[in-house]
Amino acid sequence: PSVQHTALAAERQQVLTKPPGSLGQLEKLAINLAGLNGSDKPSVDPVRMVVFAGDHGVCAEGVSAFPQAVTAQMIANFASGGAAISVMAEELGASLEVVNLGTVGEVPELPGVIHQIIAPSTANMAKSPAMSSRQVESALYSGDDAARRAVNAGCRLFIGGDMGIGNTTSAAALACVLLGQQPAALVGPGTGLNSEGVARKARIVEKALHRHGPDRDPLTVLASLGGFEIAALTGAIMGCAARRIPVLVDGFIVSVAALVAVHQQPGVREWLLFAHRSAEPGHNSVLESLDASPLLDLGMRLGEGSGAAVAVPLLRAACALHNRMASFTDAGVSGKAGD
Amino acid sequence: PSVQHTALAAERQQVLTKPPGSLGQLEKLAINLAGLNGSDKPSVDPVRMVVFAGDHGVCAEGVSAFPQAVTAQMIANFASGGAAISVMAEELGASLEVVNLGTVGEVPELPGVIHQIIAPSTANMAKSPAMSSRQVESALYSGDDAARRAVNAGCRLFIGGDMGIGNTTSAAALACVLLGQQPAALVGPGTGLNSEGVARKARIVEKALHRHGPDRDPLTVLASLGGFEIAALTGAIMGCAARRIPVLVDGFIVSVAALVAVHQQPGVREWLLFAHRSAEPGHNSVLESLDASPLLDLGMRLGEGSGAAVAVPLLRAACALHNRMASFTDAGVSGKAGD
Repeated sequence: PSVQHTALAAERQQVLTKPPGSLGQLEKLAINLAGLNGSDKPSVDPVRMVVFAGDHGVCAEGVSAFPQAVTAQMIANFASGGAAISVMAEELGASLEVVNLGTVGEVPELPGVIHQIIAPSTANMAKSPAMSSRQVESALYSGDDAARRAVNAGCRLFIGGDMGIGNTTSAAALACVLLGQQPAALVGPGTGLNSEGVARKARIVEKALHRHGPDRDPLTVLASLGGFEIAALTGAIMGCAARRIPVLVDGFIVSVAALVAVHQQPGVREWLLFAHRSAEPGHNSVLESLDASPLLDLGMRLGEGSGAAVAVPLLRAACALHNRMASFTDAGVSGKAGD
Repeated sequence: PSVQHTALAAERQQVLTKPPGSLGQLEKLAINLAGLNGSDKPSVDPVRMVVFAGDHGVCAEGVSAFPQAVTAQMIANFASGGAAISVMAEELGASLEVVNLGTVGEVPELPGVIHQIIAPSTANMAKSPAMSSRQVESALYSGDDAARRAVNAGCRLFIGGDMGIGNTTSAAALACVLLGQQPAALVGPGTGLNSEGVARKARIVEKALHRHGPDRDPLTVLASLGGFEIAALTGAIMGCAARRIPVLVDGFIVSVAALVAVHQQPGVREWLLFAHRSAEPGHNSVLESLDASPLLDLGMRLGEGSGAAVAVPLLRAACALHNRMASFTDAGVSGKAGD
């Protein structure tokens, strides 16, 4: 980020026709984006959204309220415009890509879906590492490739989304290792387990952690407990930071992917903006560990990048106000008494 | 509101392709708006914004960080597009009206400004009632007139904004009487007083409350301690409720105007949506008393309706998702296991 543009933007916020500080977090956002953009006129447009989809072997343990077939079915729903993220992409005028990394259910050729199949699903992390190191590399590459496409298309904001039945189990396990916490603290209902289901899910995570052991190397942990879509999100986030384009981080799954990325490369953190606090209870610890104060707290827990999409207009508002408001001098408005 | 449309919308949210409940507050918003609209396809567009401006006699007591001239100067800034609410109106494609109810500084003829002058300012509430009952009636009428214009123009959401140096002093005094609280609990820094200034402001409110006495009749309290723009906002809110159009309530000032309206006519409450939690500390008690959970908490404290404007895209997102997402059946996506 450009220190110079950050400083200039902070000065500008002081002279716009409003009590200094009265736009709250929108001022901080505009200043931050000016630095990330390296521009006097911060902008997040065009926005690129990419949903990464993949299936999870741990579904064999009965950890989700929805059947595994849904992952493949939802890829078709993304493509045909009926999913939440599809509606939001259209509503916001953002481009949407879907990257299919491998599902148990069959996915036909569909417009807007990029097939970079790694395997029909990860292995069951309760019994063996979810991915081989080669599979992790493929997934990281898919993510980096999406970041590259976004930058080549001139996009100024990247939103990653997730689709994968069972992925809150995987994300909770990853967060347990990276944050040094117990499953009871980070495992939640996901798409809608009852308390019995959550307890079962926590026991499966416990089993996976026991199998995994003490290794905390981020990419090793990712291979052992992650998923194709989570690894791809980690790759996309690192790829965006390397190419100097900000990422608007969605909820629990994407935040865990960001946590892996930041553990691997701490410099990634400054390229991250946080959209919302998920209702999935483990999200709080992940956000705290990343020193993140998200913009929204609407009780959302849908995934797909939907929470990030809903927050895009706040970034646009911050930029519009910063770029287009008049200064006290230009508008002939008196400043604070005694200033 | 239509009970039938509320129920139909709640059913629809259960069959859209997402875990039920996973859109959090956006689901509740869509259901609420369907009932308020009396429609299967809830919408908030077109959006009408109206900023009411007026000066406060209590400024003679030195209660604001900004000089009184700013009220008139900002009216010109609204008209020329340089104020926060002007930028947001353009950004959102919303129509913006400014209603000038009387300022100490001179205001020239300006496009988009409606002059309904009551007096150059209210009287100093520390020494006498701020308004005569006739002045309150005029202000209420100006607000109602704005609601009427919005409905006649086919608008489906009304946002009221405020401009008036000194108006957090007036609003705090009103809230003290209506909520039965002490000035120390509700008086805050407004546009930027230091702690000494806040203490002085609280003493002035104390003095005004002592002069006012125990009367809690809403319109009498409004005359005694209110402002032209606050009374107009109360009138606009009652006028919108009477004409069955929802109001997206901004921060501290507009919430106090809504509090007066709800004390006067409790049925108004169901037409109110709450946009944001202001950084002005008194806002919390007012929101609690109105049983309101605002959508945003961004530390904003600018007024003008700016916080409500920033929340408009959340309402649009809620409507778009409700109206355009596919159902499980339509998309061929499996539902929750065991359902």
